[in-house]
Amino acid sequence: MLLNCPLPLATTDRVLLGHGSGGKLSAELMRDIFLPALSNPILARLDDQAQLEIGGLRLAFTTDSFVVKPLFFPGGDIGSLAVHGTINDLAMAGARPLYLSAAYVIEEGFPLADLRRIADSMGRAAQQAGVSIVTGDTKVVERGAADGLFLNTTGIGLIPASVTISAAAARPGDVILLSGSLGDHGIAIMAAREGLQFDTVLTSDSAALHTLVEAMLAAAPAIRCLRDPTRGGLSSTLNEIAAQSATGMRILETEIPIRDEVRGACEMLGLDPLYVANEGKLVAIVAPEDADAVLAAMRTHPLGRNAARIGAVTQENAGRVVLQTAYGTTRIVDMLAGDQLPRIC
Amino acid sequence: MLLNCPLPLATTDRVLLGHGSGGKLSAELMRDIFLPALSNPILARLDDQAQLEIGGLRLAFTTDSFVVKPLFFPGGDIGSLAVHGTINDLAMAGARPLYLSAAYVIEEGFPLADLRRIADSMGRAAQQAGVSIVTGDTKVVERGAADGLFLNTTGIGLIPASVTISAAAARPGDVILLSGSLGDHGIAIMAAREGLQFDTVLTSDSAALHTLVEAMLAAAPAIRCLRDPTRGGLSSTLNEIAAQSATGMRILETEIPIRDEVRGACEMLGLDPLYVANEGKLVAIVAPEDADAVLAAMRTHPLGRNAARIGAVTQENAGRVVLQTAYGTTRIVDMLAGDQLPRIC
Repeated sequence: MLLNCPLPLATTDRVLLGHGSGGKLSAELMRDIFLPALSNPILARLDDQAQLEIGGLRLAFTTDSFVVKPLFFPGGDIGSLAVHGTINDLAMAGARPLYLSAAYVIEEGFPLADLRRIADSMGRAAQQAGVSIVTGDTKVVERGAADGLFLNTTGIGLIPASVTISAAAARPGDVILLSGSLGDHGIAIMAAREGLQFDTVLTSDSAALHTLVEAMLAAAPAIRCLRDPTRGGLSSTLNEIAAQSATGMRILETEIPIRDEVRGACEMLGLDPLYVANEGKLVAIVAPEDADAVLAAMRTHPLGRNAARIGAVTQENAGRVVLQTAYGTTRIVDMLAGDQLPRIC
Repeated sequence: MLLNCPLPLATTDRVLLGHGSGGKLSAELMRDIFLPALSNPILARLDDQAQLEIGGLRLAFTTDSFVVKPLFFPGGDIGSLAVHGTINDLAMAGARPLYLSAAYVIEEGFPLADLRRIADSMGRAAQQAGVSIVTGDTKVVERGAADGLFLNTTGIGLIPASVTISAAAARPGDVILLSGSLGDHGIAIMAAREGLQFDTVLTSDSAALHTLVEAMLAAAPAIRCLRDPTRGGLSSTLNEIAAQSATGMRILETEIPIRDEVRGACEMLGLDPLYVANEGKLVAIVAPEDADAVLAAMRTHPLGRNAARIGAVTQENAGRVVLQTAYGTTRIVDMLAGDQLPRIC
């Protein structure tokens, strides 16, 4: 990740929206403030979850605060999104998600009916995924001190002994798989926020991916890397894996599934779908001999029906992602710089 | 807890500051919204932490969001407070705190120097307590959408096999111990927020209590209940234990340690120290035969020097806390109603 951060934090003395984008500025914050302050080898791995050893058990542990705006959107709400997001960060370690916490920061005057709707949605999402929300916290701040409601979910999962997944494990020759179409969540949020009308309603892909991961691991337990391309999109996810694995990535534009309505909305809004957030998709890096089996397993799962082989890990261009365009040219796809879509999750 | 909630939520359709007070309205929110939505037996125990069994291990798991204002105060800041608070919620299960997560919601424009100071403070507090902050998250919201910075910490601890602590375990005849003076944190925050001047600087008692708990458990492994009287103060903590254990509580005003400057500030501000938040104190309920040993162990620890025996668990007045005043009269000490000190933690 650090290879892609040429700008020192010294260029600003204030937090910018881009520091929360999941792109370059987020990486700078991590490198310049959080890693030095909190230094420990588990955090320094920069995975989406900590992998812990406690009394012989391997546990995954991950936290996310959700500030999505609007709170309710086609395909979900902040409650289901928070449950899915935390489950997915656990699943990306190959862990079976077990327990979640839920912590609310609520603005005084927030409608209790909306709070009930969000809590009910969390409960349903957790039940459907087979996890329990076992502890929580509620803080209320005065009017104007928060924007409605923020929600933190933190999760614990159990990593099977046979599984070792890390963003640092990609090797040249590995195959890059993507579980489905890009950009659905980010565009659904933007459309809902801006009141944009399209021929079809754009729906978030928010979903819990752990059963998809289970199916993939059953097909090939030696999957090298798994990540869900949320904030910063596919481009930031691949750049992170490239940096942490010290390899290059080559992806083929023609192989990346994008729904027509999302492509159209991106063109209208001037957005690149490679940078738009997803909440129900994953990227897998697998050895070439495992690729067919994993892809087949993905396609038999409802959340991987449109899975595709989108590229390969390369020796050359270490730390970089190269896109071969539909016209046969190539271009470097960098991490998100600045902030494209604030408060997308 | 539920015995003390006569007002149904139907009396308001909006979230009030008091819903975050740790008192009656918080209990209503739990009863009417969160428990029905998230229903599971672990959450329903209403302890300050979930106690989980994973693969034969007993783990404690707890979450807290911190919205304290101001962010920096005598005796600490939001970073050290968040680390101490989460460690303490683990310690109140008798757990050895192991790992924390840290999730920031930051307002655009927040000074990076303050963020660095808070992160450094978290790091120091964690290191001093022997825990690691192993995973994190940063979200940034636009100017005006949050008040500076909110911080969530969630923690995992390991509960020794020999320990069974629960707010439902108090029995008539048990002794109530308090580890030190009341009200220091809440009054320090109020003084800092309101710019009040006193002869001495009022300092928060924010501290990690796990080594104190270790010393107490070494003296008597069968401690029944432990709780840290944070939001809502001693009165709310004792009311919760009384309700969950279906016992009464009788406490003696003359035995409750309160520093003179805190008592003076409370009188000036019209506050009752029994309701003011603490961040480095604990209440222990122990069998009468263990009381002397536990109290002696507390007094040999720097954080328990002023520990006192403040009362007893009673058969009568189930679900209620009765205070015997300095004048020999008695009065019922109810849970906090409404909100006394918003954004105290």
